[in-house]
Amino acid sequence: MKKLSIDLNSDMGEGFGPWVIGDGVDDCIMPLISSANIATGFHAGDPNIMHRTVLLAKQQGVGIGAHPGFRDLVGFGRRHIRESPEALINDIVYQLGALREFARLAGVGLQHIKPHGALYMHAAQDEEFSRKLVETLQVIEPTLFLYCMENSVTCRIARELGQPVVREFYADRDYDTSGSIVFTRNVRRLDPEQIAGKVLRACTEGRVMTVSGTEIDIDFDSVCIHSDTPGALELIVATRKALGEHGIRIAPPAAAVHA
Amino acid sequence: MKKLSIDLNSDMGEGFGPWVIGDGVDDCIMPLISSANIATGFHAGDPNIMHRTVLLAKQQGVGIGAHPGFRDLVGFGRRHIRESPEALINDIVYQLGALREFARLAGVGLQHIKPHGALYMHAAQDEEFSRKLVETLQVIEPTLFLYCMENSVTCRIARELGQPVVREFYADRDYDTSGSIVFTRNVRRLDPEQIAGKVLRACTEGRVMTVSGTEIDIDFDSVCIHSDTPGALELIVATRKALGEHGIRIAPPAAAVHA
Amino acid sequence: MKKLSIDLNSDMGEGFGPWVIGDGVDDCIMPLISSANIATGFHAGDPNIMHRTVLLAKQQGVGIGAHPGFRDLVGFGRRHIRESPEALINDIVYQLGALREFARLAGVGLQHIKPHGALYMHAAQDEEFSRKLVETLQVIEPTLFLYCMENSVTCRIARELGQPVVREFYADRDYDTSGSIVFTRNVRRLDPEQIAGKVLRACTEGRVMTVSGTEIDIDFDSVCIHSDTPGALELIVATRKALGEHGIRIAPPAAAVHA
Amino acid sequence: MKKLSIDLNSDMGEGFGPWVIGDGVDDCIMPLISSANIATGFHAGDPNIMHRTVLLAKQQGVGIGAHPGFRDLVGFGRRHIRESPEALINDIVYQLGALREFARLAGVGLQHIKPHGALYMHAAQDEEFSRKLVETLQVIEPTLFLYCMENSVTCRIARELGQPVVREFYADRDYDTSGSIVFTRNVRRLDPEQIAGKVLRACTEGRVMTVSGTEIDIDFDSVCIHSDTPGALELIVATRKALGEHGIRIAPPAAAVHA
Repeated sequence: MKKLSIDLNSDMGEGFGPWVIGDGVDDCIMPLISSANIATGFHAGDPNIMHRTVLLAKQQGVGIGAHPGFRDLVGFGRRHIRESPEALINDIVYQLGALREFARLAGVGLQHIKPHGALYMHAAQDEEFSRKLVETLQVIEPTLFLYCMENSVTCRIARELGQPVVREFYADRDYDTSGSIVFTRNVRRLDPEQIAGKVLRACTEGRVMTVSGTEIDIDFDSVCIHSDTPGALELIVATRKALGEHGIRIAPPAAAVHA
Repeated sequence: MKKLSIDLNSDMGEGFGPWVIGDGVDDCIMPLISSANIATGFHAGDPNIMHRTVLLAKQQGVGIGAHPGFRDLVGFGRRHIRESPEALINDIVYQLGALREFARLAGVGLQHIKPHGALYMHAAQDEEFSRKLVETLQVIEPTLFLYCMENSVTCRIARELGQPVVREFYADRDYDTSGSIVFTRNVRRLDPEQIAGKVLRACTEGRVMTVSGTEIDIDFDSVCIHSDTPGALELIVATRKALGEHGIRIAPPAAAVHA
Repeated sequence: MKKLSIDLNSDMGEGFGPWVIGDGVDDCIMPLISSANIATGFHAGDPNIMHRTVLLAKQQGVGIGAHPGFRDLVGFGRRHIRESPEALINDIVYQLGALREFARLAGVGLQHIKPHGALYMHAAQDEEFSRKLVETLQVIEPTLFLYCMENSVTCRIARELGQPVVREFYADRDYDTSGSIVFTRNVRRLDPEQIAGKVLRACTEGRVMTVSGTEIDIDFDSVCIHSDTPGALELIVATRKALGEHGIRIAPPAAAVHA
Repeated sequence: MKKLSIDLNSDMGEGFGPWVIGDGVDDCIMPLISSANIATGFHAGDPNIMHRTVLLAKQQGVGIGAHPGFRDLVGFGRRHIRESPEALINDIVYQLGALREFARLAGVGLQHIKPHGALYMHAAQDEEFSRKLVETLQVIEPTLFLYCMENSVTCRIARELGQPVVREFYADRDYDTSGSIVFTRNVRRLDPEQIAGKVLRACTEGRVMTVSGTEIDIDFDSVCIHSDTPGALELIVATRKALGEHGIRIAPPAAAVHA
């Protein structure tokens, strides 16, 4: 049951123009993760940042993923926008291609796609949107990993249609008893040791404590630590250390999935 | 000297959200041209329009080209923005990739790239920017046609570095004696017969009248008629008719270039 | 019961940059209406258009109103964005002030405010948002007319707090039996005589036919005809003619309200 | 010659959505300055931030100024955009009004206007644009202070037409021998003591060292320290201390101008 290796993913390149996000430490975080979700311009990220972040990921051997969001800079993609599945898919295709071109310029391929924020949550719950998303990926790139949660509509449909999934464990979010994460706009500063312990327990025992004080089973292929969580770097360092001490190495999802 | 075939290109998909451009007759124009410059979102075009326009071009067998512009919706990419070559290239890579992904989804490839408006004029004059643009295309896709004007810096550098060029003749713009076009923001309604005659003369004799009343030699591989010129459809219909009556067929640039 | 005069309002200035909306006939419509809802930049409208439209309204003696929308150009403010009341109020304050400054420059005042599209519908249904909106108007300008529907939350709260309301009748939208309008993204071309008859009947008898074929009572202070409805100009001309023939004159809401 | 009081101005509210600028210490800087240039949404600033910043300025008794920029979020208003004076004035009117409405909501007035970044530099050099700007201010609010540099076209025209000016001394920028500042995109971390000494000398002796090593005379009504200069808070603290120790108090420009 204990995992031998696990993917560690984080959102990268979430600045815009002169602005950086969180502690602005992408350069420090990139060498410590195995998969980077790179913002693709609609909720964050601009062409200069995308170019730089793709090169940084390549240099560190980190898997490159598109992190498309709602077209909503001011809301950072965290506000749900009522829109047809078709239009949202077009938004995603646009952003996916934009990132892919920077990867092409850098001579690397894309590893995965992970919708951002409210778009991720919308996919998790909306059957029609998730289905069109997966159907579109099946046409564009049927081997592209789709990041999602185990208990999401997205995950179920991807499996049904044959798109490979990478199921996430959210180290810096709370879980409810249904196995869903409790989303929040403002994440408080978290204790690195506590987060590391939470991840370790999930990796070794497959269990996580919920907000109601009971424990649930949890299965996943990747640990997500958000780079805009205050003190994200410390969380990632502590988590890597704890996993390393227990013989669990950080590796991109391909390895995990085929294990 | 007389051309046997000529490419006919037009800007397509230049709406945004609820708005259309010019007479809103892309559906009528597309079957009449051989190459479509599709707006890629920064000066015009949105993901829904791009998706639709790529499908329309594919259906009509029209060559698909990226038409990236300055990030300036309100100015329609007609305002020069002072920016470093590196940042402008990143803007272009972003937009090029976005369009390429819609082409990928449609199962077709890209034929060409043509910067829009002020970005086209900037490339035509700026050595450093044109060089970086061509160098980037050489990495990304060394066979992608680059649309430009014969007497532009862009054309010279593309030839120097080996990127294939398609030189344009602007049917709906005036020429000065240097062979440059006299740019204008508001193009008046033009007489279809006169424009058709101008194009025919350029195709058969390689000559065009300038604004100063003298004639100059002109060489080109493609005729451009802007879809936002009032009455664009009539201009295109008349031009096709005139060319057809003189045995010159409309064909994508590949044919013209290899002729 | 028959009205002696009625306000006639229409959305004006709904272009952006190079783009116009609908038939692009603001210049023709403005002299025919008594109140203009001027787009304020977030869903449509840009500073140049706002400047021009305010001057045009002033010249024609038309009441000037702010028409703020969700920050959503690509969706034309027709897509609901999930956001806190406080943030939406700030969006409205920003847009209201922007328009007010053009009115100040033109030496005129604002007559009214009318939220646009999805924001109008959101206000109509959301108690907390409507309350904060009215409370804010009470601070900023307690005499500014607030356009809304008779059976909306907005109307009830405005009355409760003392903000003057102008209740609308939608000439170019269908009604259901609850007196709510059936919103639609794409309005078909309507028959001018039929619309004129519908408005006339509403003005003289206070009755309107619903989509279910039954009639309901309707009371209102203003007739709205959307300028982006295809053939809007013809609808307005026919409506004015019908009202005029029955001795009902078009006049700004102040008159109607005090009647 | 020695000044008894001097205005101290800083740019405030230059975040956007989730992003803050520089050290994100507006709350700490506001109590230390006498005039705040509040970003108005085109290059930075959003309605939520503007609302908050106006309230903060009011609470601290700081003069509120509009800080309009080019419509260029990604470039932070530092990139020149080629545009007609008329259109730029409309951009300014829009932004000025937006901020004025938040001031109106807060029950305070505006003290000044100061164009941002590339727009400030454009005004400083362009006769036609500066003239239209001042003419517009003369219509809108002929008592509104216009921040500018002594040797700028803006200053000359404002004096000619009677708009009151506040001439600035840039504490954190270098001067050339013409008295112009040497603009730079990336300002290095500066030594607080050195900057404080530079400001003190300018206030007491009216002299400043240039980049070429010679000194020039300088006259001004306000000291500007940019809040996005790294360590801005320390620069402001040190400057206030040095001025205070020499009996020069920080006061809004009205006092200085009428001295």
